[in-house]
Amino acid sequence: MPTVNAYAAQTATSPLAPFQIVRRELNANDVQVEILYSGVCHSDVHQARSEWGPSLYPLVPGHEIVGRVTAVGAEVGRFKVGDLAGVGVLVDSCQHCDSCSAGLEQYCENGSTQTYNSRERESKAITFGGYSTSIVVREEFVLRVPESLDLKAVAPLLCAGITMYSPLRHWKIGAGHNVAVVGLGGLGHMGIKLAAAMGAQVTLFTTSQGKAEDGLRLGAHHVVISSDKAAMKAVRASFDFILSTVPTSHDLNPYLGTLKLGGQLVIVGAIDPVEVHGGQLISHRRSVSGSNIGGLQETQEMLDFCAEHGIVADIELIDMQDINAAYDRVVKNDVKYRFVIDMASLKREQPEEKNSAAD
Amino acid sequence: MPTVNAYAAQTATSPLAPFQIVRRELNANDVQVEILYSGVCHSDVHQARSEWGPSLYPLVPGHEIVGRVTAVGAEVGRFKVGDLAGVGVLVDSCQHCDSCSAGLEQYCENGSTQTYNSRERESKAITFGGYSTSIVVREEFVLRVPESLDLKAVAPLLCAGITMYSPLRHWKIGAGHNVAVVGLGGLGHMGIKLAAAMGAQVTLFTTSQGKAEDGLRLGAHHVVISSDKAAMKAVRASFDFILSTVPTSHDLNPYLGTLKLGGQLVIVGAIDPVEVHGGQLISHRRSVSGSNIGGLQETQEMLDFCAEHGIVADIELIDMQDINAAYDRVVKNDVKYRFVIDMASLKREQPEEKNSAAD
Repeated sequence: MPTVNAYAAQTATSPLAPFQIVRRELNANDVQVEILYSGVCHSDVHQARSEWGPSLYPLVPGHEIVGRVTAVGAEVGRFKVGDLAGVGVLVDSCQHCDSCSAGLEQYCENGSTQTYNSRERESKAITFGGYSTSIVVREEFVLRVPESLDLKAVAPLLCAGITMYSPLRHWKIGAGHNVAVVGLGGLGHMGIKLAAAMGAQVTLFTTSQGKAEDGLRLGAHHVVISSDKAAMKAVRASFDFILSTVPTSHDLNPYLGTLKLGGQLVIVGAIDPVEVHGGQLISHRRSVSGSNIGGLQETQEMLDFCAEHGIVADIELIDMQDINAAYDRVVKNDVKYRFVIDMASLKREQPEEKNSAAD
Repeated sequence: MPTVNAYAAQTATSPLAPFQIVRRELNANDVQVEILYSGVCHSDVHQARSEWGPSLYPLVPGHEIVGRVTAVGAEVGRFKVGDLAGVGVLVDSCQHCDSCSAGLEQYCENGSTQTYNSRERESKAITFGGYSTSIVVREEFVLRVPESLDLKAVAPLLCAGITMYSPLRHWKIGAGHNVAVVGLGGLGHMGIKLAAAMGAQVTLFTTSQGKAEDGLRLGAHHVVISSDKAAMKAVRASFDFILSTVPTSHDLNPYLGTLKLGGQLVIVGAIDPVEVHGGQLISHRRSVSGSNIGGLQETQEMLDFCAEHGIVADIELIDMQDINAAYDRVVKNDVKYRFVIDMASLKREQPEEKNSAAD
């Protein structure tokens, strides 16, 4: 079986370091993808550090993967060698529950299989993510990547992009809607671009005056500094829809007050407790909801939408060897707005003969 | 102007005691209602005790009012002397904002006028509620009460009933839906009756084993003791819709876990903080919403629905003079399931000549 180079965390406290992993031999419905670029998601850091419950080690992060198909199984019909391909947060699901049947594999009732820090459904082997030179994924979980977009900046669409796109579509946001995005990071900057492309009026809520200009450049029509009480009061009861991208426990109440009657605030990042005052909901029949990435069909739709509208992420390209410094900067929210690993940097570490010998 | 007997709190700490109030002379669009029965809502206690921000004193509670029309203004078309009439939580609103235009007076953008502990829109006089022998209300805020129902048990429909009916209708609950009601009090027992009458499968969540039998008698199909972890686990991800009637700050998380993909939990009683874990929302695209009573048109629809289905509240009839003991029992949730004041008890206190002299 092919051994490939990767970067892995061996424990919750060890830095990421070079590691060799084995990818499975292709099944009939498998696609082998040479990874060109892999985005760095905040959840990579959480999971590498076992901050979301016990992680499975060794842990190879990465679920924003763009590459080229290098081999396909006998029954693969949608991909051929040389095609561009993307892999996101999911690599498998039961494929028969109500959620899967509805194209909502992210809500698979039997538990979807994550691209890393998860176990393969049959072999129970730990799944390894995109911080590696190639990956093998069943065809149904491989996305078509439009040739027209800047590939390295497409990678973050596979998690950050779909995480924003799915709630905007589910709650039917478009022209005539007043939308706010809380936080300008990897998710938030995609939320602004996508909501604006859908025709909504978009406001960025940020605590950082320094991000105001960027917010406008990215497509927001207005910026509100959320620590400015007068500015917050001025937008009371004015939004139809708010996407909160804040990745940690936070107080939703100041934002809830800016929702109109029947308005909806959707959290996508915080799995921790969020504070909600019942009166804020009751007084205007407001709702707080959660949303988790998107299904495969919707992810493909998002990629096609991005191609149509020329949307990609704003990224900072790094070498694999720089990942630990990048993690520290992710934690400090010091990146505009997504790190993407150039996987050529890892291929240089990999002696050709080793790979062949292991085959 | 007519002086009428009432019971009022003079301060946040004084018990309710006899008090005389002045009702306004009838305007052309006013209806004068002799109050026969007045329900005792938990919010009466909160407001009498100034627990929801500073109350206006003297405070005459009561917003679940059933009576008979004793006089009408010159332009009143929908009521004549002798008709049954109901008054709920609202006695006025701006009547021109988007909410009012949509029949959502409870969400009036200019602030609705509450039946008590509020100020009249023009005179700015404090509004006095149903713990009195009569009330004057503009026609648009007076409900028609079906003659077929037990009048004393109709009173609680004007707040408890509509508070449960409105979210069930707004979220289109009916046959094929699996609904749970949290808490068996004044609101909860109405929630069970209404949801069952709408055709839903209904489960009562209660902490009290002693209420299980009552829950089934009232129309619940199942009862789950919410402190029983195994029982809670058995209903994981099974409800489409949950109505939480808990009137104070509470942890929603155990209930959120019982919602299906896309399920909705609606709080109607708690204006305090409620605890919500983001992960519970994100994992199943669940929502937490609030809902506030109902508009006038919807309240009328609810009364007609109750007449059609023979639904009234389960009540304990008390004399006005017993109100302070009743409040203590409301706080302890020791009532099955709503106190209603027989206003004849207050009329006996009122010398006929005093009323006439004041006219």
